Amino acid sequence: MSHRVAFQGVAGAYSEKAALNFFGRSTLTIPHKSFMEVFSAVGRGKCNFGIVPIENSLAGSIHENYDLCLKNKLWITGEIKLRVSHSLIVNRGVKLAQIRQVYSHPQALSQCAGFIRTKLKKAQPMPYFDTAGSVELLRTSGARNAAAIAGKDAAQKNKMTVLKSGIEDNPENFTRFIILSRKRVQPTPKQKSKSSIVFALKNVPGALHKALSIFALRDIDLVKIESRPLAGSPWKYLFYLDFAGNLKEDRCLRALDHLGEVTTFIRVLGCYPWAD
Amino acid sequence: MSHRVAFQGVAGAYSEKAALNFFGRSTLTIPHKSFMEVFSAVGRGKCNFGIVPIENSLAGSIHENYDLCLKNKLWITGEIKLRVSHSLIVNRGVKLAQIRQVYSHPQALSQCAGFIRTKLKKAQPMPYFDTAGSVELLRTSGARNAAAIAGKDAAQKNKMTVLKSGIEDNPENFTRFIILSRKRVQPTPKQKSKSSIVFALKNVPGALHKALSIFALRDIDLVKIESRPLAGSPWKYLFYLDFAGNLKEDRCLRALDHLGEVTTFIRVLGCYPWAD
Repeated sequence: MSHRVAFQGVAGAYSEKAALNFFGRSTLTIPHKSFMEVFSAVGRGKCNFGIVPIENSLAGSIHENYDLCLKNKLWITGEIKLRVSHSLIVNRGVKLAQIRQVYSHPQALSQCAGFIRTKLKKAQPMPYFDTAGSVELLRTSGARNAAAIAGKDAAQKNKMTVLKSGIEDNPENFTRFIILSRKRVQPTPKQKSKSSIVFALKNVPGALHKALSIFALRDIDLVKIESRPLAGSPWKYLFYLDFAGNLKEDRCLRALDHLGEVTTFIRVLGCYPWAD
Repeated sequence: MSHRVAFQGVAGAYSEKAALNFFGRSTLTIPHKSFMEVFSAVGRGKCNFGIVPIENSLAGSIHENYDLCLKNKLWITGEIKLRVSHSLIVNRGVKLAQIRQVYSHPQALSQCAGFIRTKLKKAQPMPYFDTAGSVELLRTSGARNAAAIAGKDAAQKNKMTVLKSGIEDNPENFTRFIILSRKRVQPTPKQKSKSSIVFALKNVPGALHKALSIFALRDIDLVKIESRPLAGSPWKYLFYLDFAGNLKEDRCLRALDHLGEVTTFIRVLGCYPWAD
């Protein structure tokens, strides 16, 4: 039996594409309205896995999903990077010159701002909750003066026309997704691995420097650091850290042990094969 | 002549309140549609100062404004913290039981999620671009089945009724605003000061640890670190650092000089009196 994988958005969403790339084309992908519902579907066992975007190389981290990783007791069991290439999608027969409105997710609109400004001078950007959802919106409305910006898959699923593809201003546009599960899965020590943790520092001078020293002293490379507010403690922060290493390795376990000396709280979010 | 201060939003916005607290009640506050327009109004000399939120103690950093600090060559010349307390605002005579829709900025809706769930069971949250703007929306529509969530000032400016105040779920709700100017202003060395910089690290192992060591070695406390993607270089980051210290102090100048050894780029965003 194939996996049931929860994603946010509608059929043809980038998250669904990432899920099919990660788990294989025969995977059963289940759409959900919000990221919170994806976490909840996995937590309640309705789906075996969930997939959510955690970071885009142009727009930055998706902080809501960092916060949901903390609130929900799921494990990160993998990651996948997807090249995001946007297409201009219309109802059959609609020409570029007819377009007066362009619907898409605000991030996608901003990633295509140069294209809209130069090639769609008469069009108004219309923020919508979802890229693939904006294609669905145009299909159901039958609009002939509007276009949507989304992935090619969304055009195919809705049997609509791609007027132009690769319209993003910067081609270095990638999104990294994480895979969520109720079951902890650890890669073998031979696999190139990444570990994700979250911690809160003790209230002592230089605490963050001390925390990072713990990894530097053991030649453990940091891949990413993200800070989020500690709710109820203004101007104090939680730190999410991704580091190169497998939690089956002694030096990583010792680092976490050492980290306990300068933190009030640590949680391991997962250890998983590093996607290049 | 009083200052002209640019803020984002409409009359009664939290940003306007922060501006009046910082500059005094007689200051001329000029509303703008977007944060980008606030930066631009200051950059073109249309306003002497701008004020934008940079961080909320519950929702986290306003990353758009970090990015705009980098793009625009303005100086941060001050900061102010504002306690954010939300009110439920309606047209005159509207009762709690009539409310079926609650309009506000998504952050404000989420900060009052508990109140909405328990006291407004029949109401649907309606995301809107602005807190004070949602009050204006109800005034012009005259809606009698809807409420807005915003600051008390927005109710006063629109001559509308506050049905309930202090409806935020967590009272530790503060927003920190920064003051922007074309002119660099530095506090005297005797004032408790904060400095803000942004830098990109050289591609060497442990680079972030080395960068933070530079401050730790000189007993310079870090106040905040924020990472943002380096556009065009996927999975590389810019770091925004706030540290305790005045750029007139020798140890701070030496730290910046030392930081040059491990970075490919540094910019000083400002040095200003620290708001407690």
